[in-house]
Amino acid sequence: MTAEPSQELPAPIDLTHYFSEVAKNKTASPFKAFYKFFGIPGIGNFAGGLPNNNYFPFDTLEGVAALPERFKPTPPTPVKPPKQCADPDAGPRTEGSRVVVPKVSPDPNPLTKIDLKTALQYGDALGLPPLFAWIRKFTLEHLHPNVPYKNGPEVVLTTGNTDGFSKTLEALMNLWREGVDPVEERPGMLVEQYMYTPPAIRAKSYKANIVPVSMDRQGIMASGEGGLEDVLENWDSSHGRRPHLLYTVTIGQNPTGGVVSVQRRKEIYEVCVKYDVIIIEDEPYWYLQYPSANALSIKSRGHPVSEDAQPGCETYGSSGYPFLDSLVPSFLSVDYQGRVVRLDTFSKTIAPGCRLGWITAQPALIEKIYLSTQQTTQQPSGFVQSMVAQLLIGTEGALPPRESFFSSSNKTQNGWKVDGWVRWLEGLRGNYERRMNAMCNILEANKHVVKTGRRRKQTSHHNEQNQSTINTTDDDSEWRHVVKLQIYDFDYPMGGMFTWLHFIYETHPLADKFPHSKLSAAHWVLLTREPYRVLPAPGVLFSANEAIQAASGYQFMRLCFAAVDEAEIEPLTQRLVNGIHAFWAIKKSEEIDELLEESPWMEARLAELTL
Amino acid sequence: MTAEPSQELPAPIDLTHYFSEVAKNKTASPFKAFYKFFGIPGIGNFAGGLPNNNYFPFDTLEGVAALPERFKPTPPTPVKPPKQCADPDAGPRTEGSRVVVPKVSPDPNPLTKIDLKTALQYGDALGLPPLFAWIRKFTLEHLHPNVPYKNGPEVVLTTGNTDGFSKTLEALMNLWREGVDPVEERPGMLVEQYMYTPPAIRAKSYKANIVPVSMDRQGIMASGEGGLEDVLENWDSSHGRRPHLLYTVTIGQNPTGGVVSVQRRKEIYEVCVKYDVIIIEDEPYWYLQYPSANALSIKSRGHPVSEDAQPGCETYGSSGYPFLDSLVPSFLSVDYQGRVVRLDTFSKTIAPGCRLGWITAQPALIEKIYLSTQQTTQQPSGFVQSMVAQLLIGTEGALPPRESFFSSSNKTQNGWKVDGWVRWLEGLRGNYERRMNAMCNILEANKHVVKTGRRRKQTSHHNEQNQSTINTTDDDSEWRHVVKLQIYDFDYPMGGMFTWLHFIYETHPLADKFPHSKLSAAHWVLLTREPYRVLPAPGVLFSANEAIQAASGYQFMRLCFAAVDEAEIEPLTQRLVNGIHAFWAIKKSEEIDELLEESPWMEARLAELTL
Repeated sequence: MTAEPSQELPAPIDLTHYFSEVAKNKTASPFKAFYKFFGIPGIGNFAGGLPNNNYFPFDTLEGVAALPERFKPTPPTPVKPPKQCADPDAGPRTEGSRVVVPKVSPDPNPLTKIDLKTALQYGDALGLPPLFAWIRKFTLEHLHPNVPYKNGPEVVLTTGNTDGFSKTLEALMNLWREGVDPVEERPGMLVEQYMYTPPAIRAKSYKANIVPVSMDRQGIMASGEGGLEDVLENWDSSHGRRPHLLYTVTIGQNPTGGVVSVQRRKEIYEVCVKYDVIIIEDEPYWYLQYPSANALSIKSRGHPVSEDAQPGCETYGSSGYPFLDSLVPSFLSVDYQGRVVRLDTFSKTIAPGCRLGWITAQPALIEKIYLSTQQTTQQPSGFVQSMVAQLLIGTEGALPPRESFFSSSNKTQNGWKVDGWVRWLEGLRGNYERRMNAMCNILEANKHVVKTGRRRKQTSHHNEQNQSTINTTDDDSEWRHVVKLQIYDFDYPMGGMFTWLHFIYETHPLADKFPHSKLSAAHWVLLTREPYRVLPAPGVLFSANEAIQAASGYQFMRLCFAAVDEAEIEPLTQRLVNGIHAFWAIKKSEEIDELLEESPWMEARLAELTL
Repeated sequence: MTAEPSQELPAPIDLTHYFSEVAKNKTASPFKAFYKFFGIPGIGNFAGGLPNNNYFPFDTLEGVAALPERFKPTPPTPVKPPKQCADPDAGPRTEGSRVVVPKVSPDPNPLTKIDLKTALQYGDALGLPPLFAWIRKFTLEHLHPNVPYKNGPEVVLTTGNTDGFSKTLEALMNLWREGVDPVEERPGMLVEQYMYTPPAIRAKSYKANIVPVSMDRQGIMASGEGGLEDVLENWDSSHGRRPHLLYTVTIGQNPTGGVVSVQRRKEIYEVCVKYDVIIIEDEPYWYLQYPSANALSIKSRGHPVSEDAQPGCETYGSSGYPFLDSLVPSFLSVDYQGRVVRLDTFSKTIAPGCRLGWITAQPALIEKIYLSTQQTTQQPSGFVQSMVAQLLIGTEGALPPRESFFSSSNKTQNGWKVDGWVRWLEGLRGNYERRMNAMCNILEANKHVVKTGRRRKQTSHHNEQNQSTINTTDDDSEWRHVVKLQIYDFDYPMGGMFTWLHFIYETHPLADKFPHSKLSAAHWVLLTREPYRVLPAPGVLFSANEAIQAASGYQFMRLCFAAVDEAEIEPLTQRLVNGIHAFWAIKKSEEIDELLEESPWMEARLAELTL
């Protein structure tokens, strides 16, 4: 799927029928347009409402930052030798170099100049010019090089994907007022059955219907019962308008860890074409795709996580970087109609506290979001923009740091460049992939409890679901047998930061005595207690609606392997499985009752969630 | 007006009847509530969706920052001796000291801990705890210490006042759909006749009526023709609902430079009580109040700018700082019903690129805006939050900077504290006030042109408006007289960053040959040309609607004295007045025509503005 020559590609379709009233009512601020006149050489500028940049109290911004080779990648992508691969958790103790943003750069070119005079002053909502230009180029040339519509997409900066989503929604959804507006106008948003719920909460501010789509190991299903086509084809208009938005996380899905294959993307996209649905693809974990997930699954279970979804299964071969080429590409790569809105962020690649991300979509929509940016956040903070710009880009011929402040032995770094950035992403992928492996190996080894019992020899001993019987060599008239009961299941995460544990409460000794949602609540409390003292995220938090929460959400817990320090991942996972086994060892109802008494928070959360 | 004992104050009134549908639909994110459990000591945290903070590439954030005494204050507030008052434009060349945010602080108290591990990680939308706590305390104890309702207001951080306004509007205004919703429901926002227009543009996204209120030298008028009461009393419901919001800049009003006195505030407030109007007070220039404006006006013209509006006229005496006490206080100081929403920002006190501000209002409204923050921007960037926190607060017992990077001679600063912050504000006020004086002295001296002519002795020679006749001692039958024609007028700015020049085009030699709006356009073009080459902001940009733009907006230009370097303020102002005089010297229509040919931008802007 190499890009067609641009002139043969169709233009993106007109989406204005989906533009919200607010978006339609937007006009550019005349103030901002005025800024372009500030650049007239020698002009005595009385026009801007700007403070004096000599009065900013910061004379420099600086930092010590990692070299791009700090962390060790995982196979199979070829990488430059990891000359600097230190202890992954060592942080500040490993070698770094200085990143310095001077007050004033002598660079006359606004597209390369990185200084505080510019970055800390007012500016266009597009962002600090060198950073915006770098992100735009990286996005269009390396990240999404093959968007199959004429002239390709445009880019606008955000303060992160939460902001990116809320601006996208402002542009594409109207508020619906209960009792005032006709029910047929109530908007809807399609979501994953198990999902990162804040976008649904935001959409509920507009009184949108939140419409779950069934998932398999990859992510949402295009067809089949509860799949995308099923939901849209059988839409009941008495609940509202057929949903025109799909919100989805397709790489390292939160919470399931799935990765949607290219083949599945094409199927989903065709359904969206048929029903005129806009795809909002939120991908904070995009570069965290784990080829080892399928390998581990085959090794331990004899089958891959997903036949056609392994990362690197298809090489687009045009990003210029083998690592990027090895990754399953964005929905943008199949977006021949311009109906994909892609959200990218630095939250997981640099830090969440950046509050820095960007949206990639067809230009007409980006323009509306740009106008919204003028009227709301304006450009992201100049503190983060200038530091990230200096980290990634560097400045040619910038001032050296003030000598008095540095000993001469310390390097000043002049930008990672795209090579360094991709190398950094590979190193991060390596760190997180090794953590995933370490956690999953322990989970794999502990997913059964062993139950011993006696049974008459005559009894047929077929393997029931979730248990296997091992006959002992005993010449008695009874078999002494050992039953391996499976107490949880999981898929090896193909990407992202999470393992999604599915507990099989049917196999709990008290399965007949309590509703399983109660067992789940008690289980969670036990895990947080000594000596286990671990905090998984309850699955109910990720259920798209109350029905799913009640039907299945309680059966899951989400484990984030990302935040735990590398040295802690094995001992903590072991504490977790010990806690799980301890819970399955409970045979007295009173013990469950006692645990439930101590779950007022959990109960309160559940009550709140069903509001 | 000292605060009453808190128990005697009335509670703020219920504003929920004005909460927008979006605000009413808001619920808290269960994810964010979950964060509080992350703090359980020793817990193995698998719950958060957080990246590992050891993988943030920044090991430190640092900067060289000013000492709070860098700039010299102006009278009359008593200040600590300016031990460090350097050349105000010297910037980096004056003494500074290092501000260092370490990767990890050993401080166990989250309310004082300032480190990258926290600041660059996800966190509650309230903001970085030490910074939020400091801003909240400064706001409630020093900035607005006397808010006369029970338990006082609350505070929420924003990414600046544009964001603060848009979130306030989201909470308090519903979209109106033309042709769908009844006209009586169309919302309205009261604004100043001459205004900073972006908030009006934002409100127009909701299809709001933008309703101008007449102004005098202070700001909007409470009574009189076109004043607040007049507009509200005579509201014609066939245009929409009577406006329930007032957007206003009361200190250093943009563009007029006015300051609304306490007396006027009380009058405006009473009208708002009568008509149930919420006041959105946007005050980026609050600390820039200029006692010298009245003094200069008295000296040159024999009267103050405003009888009751001089800064410092009323001492509230409870902020703890003479400088703060000397300033006209916020509308919050008279807000006994809790109907004021105050927007504060670091944009003019630190730098616009901070994208950091805060809203102060009654708690029920702040809660809605906090929920909006969770769903949109989240907390401001950790880069700016941590650097500003370290600048203002510092850390007790924080790690010293890494010795290897610094020569031992360099001080590391441990926070300005409130004392330093107030001293910094005084220094900034000093810098800007001196600039205002320098500009206005030149404007004052050049506001007339001198016209010579002959007139019969018999003619009565009363002083017409805008001209004075000086008789020469001539014994001819005619007087040879010199007429001083006033070509512009202005009020000495009582605050802020702007002088608002009112041109008297009636006195132009070609006043009868061109519409004065055309003269204004030609004038602007001439000013941008050699040898004048100055860029004032055209008054049409600040007109609240097209009628005002057409009737009077073109007569004004706004001059920002803030951004120009101190050494440049006099020569540039001189170039400006030379340009003005050159324009008044034009006697040939063709010269105006030629200038108008070169004003396509101006014309285009005007065309766009009348859309």
